[in-house]
Amino acid sequence: MGDQVADKMENLTTSDKGQKKECPAKKEDGDGVPAAPSSSGGGGKAALKVPKGTRDYSPQQMAIRESVLATIIQCFKRHGAENIDTPVFELKDVLTGKYGEDSKLIYDLKDQGGEILSLRYDLTVPFARYLAMSKISSIKRYHIAKVYRRDNPAMTRGRFREFYQCDFDIAGAYDPMLPDAECIKMVEEILNALQIGEFQIKINHRQILDGVFELCGVPLEKFREICSSVDKLDKSPWEEVRNEMINEKGLSPEIADKIGKKIQVSGKPNDVIAQLKSDTDFMSNPTTKQGLESMELLFKYCQLMGVEESSVSFDLSLARGLDYYTGVIYEAVLISRGKGGAAVGVGSIAGGGRYDTLVGMFDPKKRNVPCVGVSIGVERVFSIIEQRSDKKIRTTETQVYVATAQKGLVEERVKILSTLWGSGIKAEHSYKASPKLLQQLQYCEEMQIPWAVVIGEGELEKGIVKLRNVATREEEEIPRTDLIPILKARLS
Amino acid sequence: MGDQVADKMENLTTSDKGQKKECPAKKEDGDGVPAAPSSSGGGGKAALKVPKGTRDYSPQQMAIRESVLATIIQCFKRHGAENIDTPVFELKDVLTGKYGEDSKLIYDLKDQGGEILSLRYDLTVPFARYLAMSKISSIKRYHIAKVYRRDNPAMTRGRFREFYQCDFDIAGAYDPMLPDAECIKMVEEILNALQIGEFQIKINHRQILDGVFELCGVPLEKFREICSSVDKLDKSPWEEVRNEMINEKGLSPEIADKIGKKIQVSGKPNDVIAQLKSDTDFMSNPTTKQGLESMELLFKYCQLMGVEESSVSFDLSLARGLDYYTGVIYEAVLISRGKGGAAVGVGSIAGGGRYDTLVGMFDPKKRNVPCVGVSIGVERVFSIIEQRSDKKIRTTETQVYVATAQKGLVEERVKILSTLWGSGIKAEHSYKASPKLLQQLQYCEEMQIPWAVVIGEGELEKGIVKLRNVATREEEEIPRTDLIPILKARLS
Repeated sequence: MGDQVADKMENLTTSDKGQKKECPAKKEDGDGVPAAPSSSGGGGKAALKVPKGTRDYSPQQMAIRESVLATIIQCFKRHGAENIDTPVFELKDVLTGKYGEDSKLIYDLKDQGGEILSLRYDLTVPFARYLAMSKISSIKRYHIAKVYRRDNPAMTRGRFREFYQCDFDIAGAYDPMLPDAECIKMVEEILNALQIGEFQIKINHRQILDGVFELCGVPLEKFREICSSVDKLDKSPWEEVRNEMINEKGLSPEIADKIGKKIQVSGKPNDVIAQLKSDTDFMSNPTTKQGLESMELLFKYCQLMGVEESSVSFDLSLARGLDYYTGVIYEAVLISRGKGGAAVGVGSIAGGGRYDTLVGMFDPKKRNVPCVGVSIGVERVFSIIEQRSDKKIRTTETQVYVATAQKGLVEERVKILSTLWGSGIKAEHSYKASPKLLQQLQYCEEMQIPWAVVIGEGELEKGIVKLRNVATREEEEIPRTDLIPILKARLS
Repeated sequence: MGDQVADKMENLTTSDKGQKKECPAKKEDGDGVPAAPSSSGGGGKAALKVPKGTRDYSPQQMAIRESVLATIIQCFKRHGAENIDTPVFELKDVLTGKYGEDSKLIYDLKDQGGEILSLRYDLTVPFARYLAMSKISSIKRYHIAKVYRRDNPAMTRGRFREFYQCDFDIAGAYDPMLPDAECIKMVEEILNALQIGEFQIKINHRQILDGVFELCGVPLEKFREICSSVDKLDKSPWEEVRNEMINEKGLSPEIADKIGKKIQVSGKPNDVIAQLKSDTDFMSNPTTKQGLESMELLFKYCQLMGVEESSVSFDLSLARGLDYYTGVIYEAVLISRGKGGAAVGVGSIAGGGRYDTLVGMFDPKKRNVPCVGVSIGVERVFSIIEQRSDKKIRTTETQVYVATAQKGLVEERVKILSTLWGSGIKAEHSYKASPKLLQQLQYCEEMQIPWAVVIGEGELEKGIVKLRNVATREEEEIPRTDLIPILKARLS
């Protein structure tokens, strides 16, 4: 499930940086035009650019993207998830009234006659529409696709307007906290597998927030907007949030202070549970009490599932932006250790929660399908891994390069290639009829192709080929008839 | 490279049919709402639909899509291709003037302030824009992504407005026909690997068509529109095409008849080459003669690469719609055998050709990057495989289901699950605290999960679990401590 807060961070990557990685231009066969690394400009013509907030993915970037997504998909599949896809655009009506004030960021299509359409803003609303339309009452699915937001880059630097979401959701009427705990387990597994550093999953419950507002005396109709103010606590100090509550949202200073005291509580689940249980205010309110019981069950399941205690925190100030959450909410943040080892959150990397009433907004009979899900901020992950990778990433899987030492041997090269392809070996050659040997071998090194088969007239006469280990530059002569079995043995 | 003619067929699939496959609704855990198979309607609300010409992909359809794309990608990688991606929309200017009269099918975005954008119509124009913008002079890449066309379903039934293209292109200044032959080899490999039936790859050369027009006396400025008429020969009889040439394009009947005689020639490459060589008209024109020499070289390389003679035909009536082709053109058609074994083409499944001047349209200094490529009509492939698959396709990869025989054992289930996940085993359980055993086992059979681990109080006391082979329904008792090694052995 994709939602606002996670996405605020998800698309916070260095747009230009990615473009500056050089695509592995094939210099051997180049036509003399130097390969320029930047794709952010192209000369005199105004049209030679990509739309604002978007980017091309070079082969290097695609290699990273593929590897990150494969890791995540493996985890989704380990938990038995199915895969679905929905159209990139929806009827505008489907999106209307689902995103609050962020609706202004939706891309609309031009009215060219026919239906009025908009590009999808996240994957959660299309998922809810899909469930209602297909009358699906239970499914565990993932969905990896691009979403579109007309964010204003002047205000929010470095954000993308087209970016990936990577969602996993469990829909269905089930027993409390079993699907919710599995989502948290999944976040832990994925972040461990991606190896992008220390993280912590903050967890809270909307019922606890509602109960706190209740016992602090916030009027019911202000619950959601006060929740929005609390949501800002991850970026703003309490004083600012307090001012907003008082000056913009119209709370009395007393109520705001009460809220501040109650929600600025976080720590190890067992410690926070113990602290809350000793708070008579908190325990006397049925809503907070019930929310706490839910959290106890959630943490019990998390523990049984093997979630590390250090991976999670119970954080009463976590609010999440979107209105549609109805239960557990969570957000994973990357941690940076300052001097003395103090943990500092450096940005959200995943988030989600329970939303039990969104499907009912689409169902003609208002039937609800309870849902819980998580969205992984993969753009951020791509960006972290791109910045970190010092060694050159392979962009092809070529195993063997067929090279010629003399002119005019293109036909022999093609025959060998054909045999290699026919044996399932990934193989390339130069598309020049008479390429220079040095350039062919340089290409192999640059593209990290492990083996080169080199033929010359001498080899042809003797019925042999030279097999070159590209990394060590060692060469050996082998009978041409043994080439396939020998290569298969080396490659296995 | 995606182009018009291939795509005419590519999105010609049975839109509704796909939707009628039932998504594997998890009945065990359903909330009592019956799962309806159709997603083409949803009740009283007008908004509960997907946009015209689009569809959701159910888990069943995604399983087919993933398997088809994996087969194709494997082939692309065997030929050393890199992967790229571009944004779903482009500046409108980028697309303007590239698609002739089909430009009216482009989806425009609403002007919400800022740039004027359109959804991509194919992957070829964005590729050319990418090459020019990134100053890449040589690359061998594939690109698999959705494209958008406001086709009128009333006129062209069953077509999609959102559909996949699956393109492979080789860009760079190389020696003649080496990249071109590899594209044809690739089409043969992919169609063989997909096992969707008999096919034939028709091949022609734009230079031959141009030369024929020249020697038949067509005025130079009419070349492209007469080429468009010839392109219709795959669907219309010669008489209709002749009428169009005369009545709409203004050719004289004599010239039209001459063209008809020259281009209605097709067959085995060697036969056609011999026939053309004995045609003094044809051999006296430098353009046709040169085109024929190119085709001879192409077929020689195809043969050396192991392309079957029966897979290809030299067909002078193949024209391809798009203006931008400058050399070899090809189109693969599926063949149906009538009575007596006569071959009848039943629709295009792949197509492409050489386009040496498209990149120059974007380059500020008009520098060209010669390109040749092919687009696989994957929507058609999805559709063929969907219609053919009788047995139920697995939509998850779950290896083990953890079931309980009595109530109240959810914690034990979760502990076992956690061990399985920790060992990399794909495992699921019911999200109900006390599910019925029969329903759990039925779910395993329905979802084709190979193994079930069943625990009851008796097993727990004895420190064992029951391991059930779901297909044979055989059960055996094994020590709980041996569960992981035994499962790993069974699953390997």
